[in-house]
Amino acid sequence: MKNIAILTSGGDAPGMNTAIRAVAKYAMSKGITVYGIKRGYAGMLNDEIFELTPKDLGGIIDRGGTFLLTARLPEFKNPEVRAEAVKNLKKREIEGLVVIGGDGSFHGADLLYKEHGIKVIGIPGTIDNDIAGTDYTIGFDTTLNIILDAISKIRDTATSHERTYLIEVMGRNAGDLALYSCLAGGGDGLLIPEKEFSIDDLAMQINKRREQGKLHDVILVAEGVGSAFEIAEKLKGKVKSEMRVTVLGHIQRGGTPSGLDRIIATKMGAHSVELLEEGKSGLMIGIESNKLVTYPISHAWESKKEIDIKDYELALTLGH
Amino acid sequence: MKNIAILTSGGDAPGMNTAIRAVAKYAMSKGITVYGIKRGYAGMLNDEIFELTPKDLGGIIDRGGTFLLTARLPEFKNPEVRAEAVKNLKKREIEGLVVIGGDGSFHGADLLYKEHGIKVIGIPGTIDNDIAGTDYTIGFDTTLNIILDAISKIRDTATSHERTYLIEVMGRNAGDLALYSCLAGGGDGLLIPEKEFSIDDLAMQINKRREQGKLHDVILVAEGVGSAFEIAEKLKGKVKSEMRVTVLGHIQRGGTPSGLDRIIATKMGAHSVELLEEGKSGLMIGIESNKLVTYPISHAWESKKEIDIKDYELALTLGH
Amino acid sequence: MKNIAILTSGGDAPGMNTAIRAVAKYAMSKGITVYGIKRGYAGMLNDEIFELTPKDLGGIIDRGGTFLLTARLPEFKNPEVRAEAVKNLKKREIEGLVVIGGDGSFHGADLLYKEHGIKVIGIPGTIDNDIAGTDYTIGFDTTLNIILDAISKIRDTATSHERTYLIEVMGRNAGDLALYSCLAGGGDGLLIPEKEFSIDDLAMQINKRREQGKLHDVILVAEGVGSAFEIAEKLKGKVKSEMRVTVLGHIQRGGTPSGLDRIIATKMGAHSVELLEEGKSGLMIGIESNKLVTYPISHAWESKKEIDIKDYELALTLGH
Amino acid sequence: MKNIAILTSGGDAPGMNTAIRAVAKYAMSKGITVYGIKRGYAGMLNDEIFELTPKDLGGIIDRGGTFLLTARLPEFKNPEVRAEAVKNLKKREIEGLVVIGGDGSFHGADLLYKEHGIKVIGIPGTIDNDIAGTDYTIGFDTTLNIILDAISKIRDTATSHERTYLIEVMGRNAGDLALYSCLAGGGDGLLIPEKEFSIDDLAMQINKRREQGKLHDVILVAEGVGSAFEIAEKLKGKVKSEMRVTVLGHIQRGGTPSGLDRIIATKMGAHSVELLEEGKSGLMIGIESNKLVTYPISHAWESKKEIDIKDYELALTLGH
Repeated sequence: MKNIAILTSGGDAPGMNTAIRAVAKYAMSKGITVYGIKRGYAGMLNDEIFELTPKDLGGIIDRGGTFLLTARLPEFKNPEVRAEAVKNLKKREIEGLVVIGGDGSFHGADLLYKEHGIKVIGIPGTIDNDIAGTDYTIGFDTTLNIILDAISKIRDTATSHERTYLIEVMGRNAGDLALYSCLAGGGDGLLIPEKEFSIDDLAMQINKRREQGKLHDVILVAEGVGSAFEIAEKLKGKVKSEMRVTVLGHIQRGGTPSGLDRIIATKMGAHSVELLEEGKSGLMIGIESNKLVTYPISHAWESKKEIDIKDYELALTLGH
Repeated sequence: MKNIAILTSGGDAPGMNTAIRAVAKYAMSKGITVYGIKRGYAGMLNDEIFELTPKDLGGIIDRGGTFLLTARLPEFKNPEVRAEAVKNLKKREIEGLVVIGGDGSFHGADLLYKEHGIKVIGIPGTIDNDIAGTDYTIGFDTTLNIILDAISKIRDTATSHERTYLIEVMGRNAGDLALYSCLAGGGDGLLIPEKEFSIDDLAMQINKRREQGKLHDVILVAEGVGSAFEIAEKLKGKVKSEMRVTVLGHIQRGGTPSGLDRIIATKMGAHSVELLEEGKSGLMIGIESNKLVTYPISHAWESKKEIDIKDYELALTLGH
Repeated sequence: MKNIAILTSGGDAPGMNTAIRAVAKYAMSKGITVYGIKRGYAGMLNDEIFELTPKDLGGIIDRGGTFLLTARLPEFKNPEVRAEAVKNLKKREIEGLVVIGGDGSFHGADLLYKEHGIKVIGIPGTIDNDIAGTDYTIGFDTTLNIILDAISKIRDTATSHERTYLIEVMGRNAGDLALYSCLAGGGDGLLIPEKEFSIDDLAMQINKRREQGKLHDVILVAEGVGSAFEIAEKLKGKVKSEMRVTVLGHIQRGGTPSGLDRIIATKMGAHSVELLEEGKSGLMIGIESNKLVTYPISHAWESKKEIDIKDYELALTLGH
Repeated sequence: MKNIAILTSGGDAPGMNTAIRAVAKYAMSKGITVYGIKRGYAGMLNDEIFELTPKDLGGIIDRGGTFLLTARLPEFKNPEVRAEAVKNLKKREIEGLVVIGGDGSFHGADLLYKEHGIKVIGIPGTIDNDIAGTDYTIGFDTTLNIILDAISKIRDTATSHERTYLIEVMGRNAGDLALYSCLAGGGDGLLIPEKEFSIDDLAMQINKRREQGKLHDVILVAEGVGSAFEIAEKLKGKVKSEMRVTVLGHIQRGGTPSGLDRIIATKMGAHSVELLEEGKSGLMIGIESNKLVTYPISHAWESKKEIDIKDYELALTLGH
């Protein structure tokens, strides 16, 4: 393998820069030339491709975001667009491509391999932790800690009036962020897309806590469930509590990547190059059982990741 | 002065616990007995008054919130209610009262003094920094840093799509938090209650940045201006940008108090006891010119605090 | 199981409070009475045992340290001392004991079981991550992130003079903290007890980086290797670099527990009660393969935990 | 004023980057061309001067360190060296120079003005806060908060053994950092260069706290007093306490600048350009009485900054 390229695609995830660094540094240590592709597949099409030097990799290990940027290119679904884009790889004799992103990005990579023979490896990067084949996606741990910090600040409230705080957190259609911030943050309630809930039950639990003398509660609401504002509206008439809604929003996508995110980003990054050197392709890397594993890249969208029921039940048990 | 009491009232402000500690520790070092009143004036009425011991003060210097809690008691406007409440002070021979809170809390203190002779000192605690007579209120600096951290996370966004982020911050009717987070956070735009603005001008500035090649901008919106969501709605048709709104909400009220907040809380706390020992009353303490100052307590609501025009203009200049 | 007790022993580890909360809350939810033992085995001997209430568990989930405190009691090696101590459990009809700490603490627990039939479960809590039977000990992730934050601050140095920073981190005789902070922090060099090193080789690598134009480097030194100050002294004559030594010290033992630490503390805590309810005893809980596992409690000291060689080599590869 | 240059000199101070940004952005908004000089006076001599563009200023507002770097050039004391260096300014028609650093750096600037007519403005940047003419130097507030975070972590210690923690902090010959971290961090003892102390008195206070049942104490030691390790050695035989020494070291020089540091850096930065535009020279800017002030640049080294005695006494009073 003489020349490889890296791109980041999909939503921001803290740790993407760390992964780029690991792919590039490891490859350079093996004498491989590394190209960075700006703005995901859009940049590939637009020939925004440049050779990476060690200087580009300095000071990014602990920086949120990705210096290669991301972009959406719906047209990449079109085989002609892909054929155009891949010319920009071929003309530089780029044989391998590492894609850091979500399962949407993996689709595009898989097609580049099947249609044009570019060897591709996918590294799962998304704060939502909703990619099958890995216990952790790059970005999840950092975001979890951002949410926990927000919960701690909200819990500092010193009002003696009865309050229910609904905190809406990201996750797309996955409840992981909500579940683990509830478990680790001592949340009192938890609404995740994987589990049905009823407003009346929720109201009943809240009122029960009021009767037991607990003044405040914190309910984690995964965005996949719906708007926390709407849920608060529905609760209003039914609970002895003032409602306060916090939608954490985009602060969840940024910030210095955590230790765990940097560790998995680094290990996955180096491993992607090892796999390319072995001539492998069409694989995604994951962390399972605290070890690096690989799956066919389609595993990311073909399999569904399940929520850990035991952890869910524990969160509810400790919440009441 | 043999016995004094402390209460916290109004909205949460990080540093309130630090102030309580300073008042109490300093008073105890002078042989004064110190009572804590739970839940502000509501607790005073309810006789939720207890003697503070050094043990109560351990481990609170860096804790957000206030362990004495706060509460609203609209009935305190009623002189009979105040007369009832003050009995609970008199029966313990409490001669002095330190009130940590906003100007609303100072009103109640002032009346206790005028009607019942309890010597009162007000310490300004609110994240909004909207109390006249002091450059800084306890809580402002911590909240400023929370907002700056949020801005940094939002600026990590790696999308190459044009985006305008509106960040709605607290402040009631004051623009201080928005102004100084804009100045210190490199915000591109700033909407504060003290200054009129037009949606069209705002849209024009945003489009101008797009033309200059600047992909993203961050606009600070003080809550006193209105809802950032509504402003985003109005901008939608007029700008080449996707709008993203973040309402930081209640994370702005909690968290470990910053160094500056702890310094002014400590100095003001100790000074309140000095003033009581000197037989002073009906005063509020402030930090002006980096020194402790006192004003008649009514100064807090009789005078209006002005925004620093030079700082405002500098924020706009550096934003474009 | 009607009555259980909890104690924390050994060195501080962030997340101990979270574990106590989980053990107690989960047990209370099953109708079990929970006792807290202050000051480890010293407190057990001294009858510093008290019933825990929900109130004790409020506000501790995100607090560093342990409110039950720890202490050393070398005398606990003496069977008569153990017999005395256990009387304080027996008189309260305490049948189960959860010990949160390191392998030294597990020894004592094991003997209480073998000699007196108290059912014991050990939860591994130590920042050093040196307990066999678990991928992570409670406290390790938090401390890793504290070290990474220190590395980031040190790397901000703007001096253009050639500098080598040696950062001495904790770990007792394990190199985990040094290894993973090197890997995740982009360290240039790494000295761990598990691997021999030579001062001359280290000097050679440092000088090589100077020749390649790299101004500064950061070397992680596990405390089990020796004093970073002494290593710096030995390097002085051999390298083109000013040496700067930072011994992080006790800031590594405190602070808000991270998300991961709180998750494993919570899951292990609840599981310890499940095991006791099942009549199990003499076991330690671990996290292996991202799942809860149990081992005979002696596994903690009978087995030796190995460093991950692949991760070690990756750290060296990416460091040069 | 058509062309100005900026350099940073002396020790690192968080907020230097923010100051550079403000000088440059403000100047550019007035149509002034701005040059950056790398590596302080060494870079000026070496002609490491380049025109700054807006791109250079993006993303640095919240970055520790200074991207212009610093360096020591003892030779700058030599007028011939200065004459050589200033040629590199003259050939670019640079008329104004903003120097961000400590009083040492101001000396050099003053001489450039007196000997060669370059208009110079000094902005005080140092974590030590030891420059006369300003209440705050850029970097002090950030470092204060770093120390406070370290104190909080150390105070989390859960050992029930008697311990005295000595924390050695920076400050050169000033006690400000030690004083204000003691005041805001609830330190029990304080050793600063401005005040004599005796080991026996210190030992007596420590033993007194032991008798009063206080298990742990934290003593802040300013580096200008001496080595905390040596003080610990002297205390060993005299106190009922295990000694633990933490030398915070270089983590105190880095990190994201705080809100206050960014505000003063930004205001001072813009003001330096205003002064140059007004034809002023040979001045240093300070923050006094919460307002920008100017002094002859020599004020920085001719006047001695005094410690605030009242704050010192308050720190002692609240520490016991």
